[in-house]
This record gives sequence, structure tokens and C-alpha cells, in this order.
Amino acid sequence: MRMRHKPWADDYLAENSHIVISEPSQYKGKWHSVFGNDNPIHIEVGTGKGQFISGMALQNPDVNYIGIELFKSVIVTAVDKVKQTEAPNVKLLNINANMLSDVFADGEVDRVYLNFSDPWPKKRHEKRRLTNHAFLKKYEQVLGGKGAIHFKTDNRGLFEYSLTSFSEYGLVLTFVSLDLHQSDFEGNVMTEYEEKFAAKGQPIYRVEAEWRT
Amino acid sequence: MRMRHKPWADDYLAENSHIVISEPSQYKGKWHSVFGNDNPIHIEVGTGKGQFISGMALQNPDVNYIGIELFKSVIVTAVDKVKQTEAPNVKLLNINANMLSDVFADGEVDRVYLNFSDPWPKKRHEKRRLTNHAFLKKYEQVLGGKGAIHFKTDNRGLFEYSLTSFSEYGLVLTFVSLDLHQSDFEGNVMTEYEEKFAAKGQPIYRVEAEWRT
Repeated sequence: MRMRHKPWADDYLAENSHIVISEPSQYKGKWHSVFGNDNPIHIEVGTGKGQFISGMALQNPDVNYIGIELFKSVIVTAVDKVKQTEAPNVKLLNINANMLSDVFADGEVDRVYLNFSDPWPKKRHEKRRLTNHAFLKKYEQVLGGKGAIHFKTDNRGLFEYSLTSFSEYGLVLTFVSLDLHQSDFEGNVMTEYEEKFAAKGQPIYRVEAEWRT
Repeated sequence: MRMRHKPWADDYLAENSHIVISEPSQYKGKWHSVFGNDNPIHIEVGTGKGQFISGMALQNPDVNYIGIELFKSVIVTAVDKVKQTEAPNVKLLNINANMLSDVFADGEVDRVYLNFSDPWPKKRHEKRRLTNHAFLKKYEQVLGGKGAIHFKTDNRGLFEYSLTSFSEYGLVLTFVSLDLHQSDFEGNVMTEYEEKFAAKGQPIYRVEAEWRT
């Protein structure tokens, strides 16, 4: 994603701390109290400009959404999206995906979304892919060894890699689409990227991978 | 596959019983004696006109290949292909895939190939798909709960179905390509169908699914 330095981002995030939670590790094990209900918690790792998480929050008021984004210059746009939707069931965290278990207690999360993650195509960057076993282990911890990952991408190489990575890790693939927009999948919420790719007629790949106990 | 009735097929198969084995159940548990060696046995279920199995036999002289094809009017062409190659390590069986365990002892087979299997797209025909759980159970038996299925197809719906079918059955996906001819996979032997589809630039999907003990 092209990013411009935004010197005002720090102040903007601080002003919107009801949406972008500061020092989120203080809520580890207590996220239900932040939302004021016991609804399931779904997180998006790499939430980008926030169109997906905002759209999901509007579509599913009985689910709590937390979008995680490392880059301040990107998450500020997600803040605006969340403000526009006025959905009370979505929060944002400006943290690294490596920090998940500092922020969430074991089993506190019910589902992980990954959308159009950076493909890191070079073999030597494999460990940076968000579907790598090292990351699956982090998701597994906060999911408490249950729940699922829902992943979509337009990147063929990353999708091929992810299918085998999920399967070899022991996850069960319960849904696969190799052309999401030509399938009968209902309720798809598009990301900003997805809208662009879909307009070009490029296929979007999607998989659901479950932990089975 | 378009099939023409060939009244001479029965005689032709009988004349070539060194290639198309008659009453194959008599060799159950004794296939190594048919080949005269202890090399691994790989079978292709739905071998069609035989280009794949003949090509594989030439490429891998240390593997024994057995092609299974239900339709007499199709298998006669496979007989010709095998005769042309003069490969000693390939045999054909004119049987239904349902009969695998009548013909092979438990664990006698080391790998199963499925190529461009009939997609049976209607939900009510799901049980006829060769990647359905009922068939996986048959493969599992003759494989002795080890080994792998190598499957390729140009049919998106069948491939999506098969990935989840394999995974939900408990197999591990160790290789996935969503565009085989644009990948760096080496040693691919094309079927007759595959040559046609590839010439049109349509993607070929391929997966390897393993039993893990």
C-alpha cells in the first residue's frame, strides 16, 4: 500500500481514542467490557483503510469487530470510516500482529480475518506472510484453539501457499472459492483493494480454515 | 467424453490381455508378481485414452502404473497408447472405480492419480464425484492409509469441492497450484484434455493430498 507520511496522525489517533484504543494491553481478557456486551469478537489483522471492518460491523451488529493495523498513516483513514458508519461494535488497534497475545487473552477472539495481506513473494520473506505457521500459532493462541480464519486475496501465489500452510498446520478447509465474485457466496463485504481488482475482472480467492477440536 | 459404440472392443481387449488384465481380482495382493518387481504401484482412476499413464510410465520406469477405465470404447485407445510406448510398467483394467478393493489388497497401492474427472456439477450427483468421501474411503483402503492422491482438473467447481472434501476427510494438502502451466512444477505429463485446455490458455488446477499417519 502506498503510504504518505502524515505528521498529524499521532494527534489524530489520540483525539479518537474511543475508536483507536490506546495501550490496548490494559484490556487483555476484558474486551467484552469495552464493548459492553458478550458478543463474539472477530479481529481483522491488517485492516488497512477500514472499509471491510466497518462494513462487517454494520452488517453484523451482534458481533464485535477489532481491526488491527500497524501503519498510522493508514489507520487514520480507517478511523474516518468507522466514524462515518457510527457503528458502536468496531474498534481499532494501532499495533503489530506479533503483539496479539499481549492484547488478547487465550480464547478471547472467535475469528480472524485476513484480507489482501502483503504476499511477500520472495522465499526469504516467507516468515512475514500472515498465513505462515508462526502467525497461525499466534492466532491459535488468542482463538484458544477453536474458531476459524477467513482469508481472501487476489494473489495466486499467496493463496496457494496459504492453502498448504493452513492444511499442514492441521486446520480444516471448510470453504474455498477460486472466483469469489462469480460464486454464490452471500454477504461479501469488499475491501478497497477488492473493489479495484474486481472491476478489472481479476478473480478473488477466498478460504475458510477451521480449528477442529 | 464423447463415446462411440465400438462393437469390436470386447475382442480387441481380449486380444491384448497382456495389457488389459482380464479378471483382475485374481491378482489381488499379487500385483508385484504381474510386474515382476517390487516397485511402487500408482493407479490412475479414470485413465481415459491413456496418454497420461503411458507418459508417466515412460518418465518413471521404476514405478508400476495401472490405469483404470470403465468404458470399453475409451480404454481401447489407451491400449493403443500403451502398445506404442512399449513400456513394460503399465497395465490397464476395464473396471468400475467402486471395485478397487476387489482388485487390490489393503496397502497394495502407493498413489492414486485423478485427472480431469467428470465434475458432476449437480448437487444431487455429488456422490459420483471421484473426490467424494465415499471414494476417498475406497482409495484409503487400497493405499493402506498412507500415500497420496494427485489430482488435476480444469473445472473450478470440482477443484473447490475437492480441496474441502480432501481437507475435511483428514488429508493434508501438500501442494496446490491454481495455474499449473504457469507454475514451476516440473515433469508434468499432460492428458489429452489438458493439451486442449492449455492451448486455450485456461488454467489447470492441481493438488497433492496426503494421508498422514
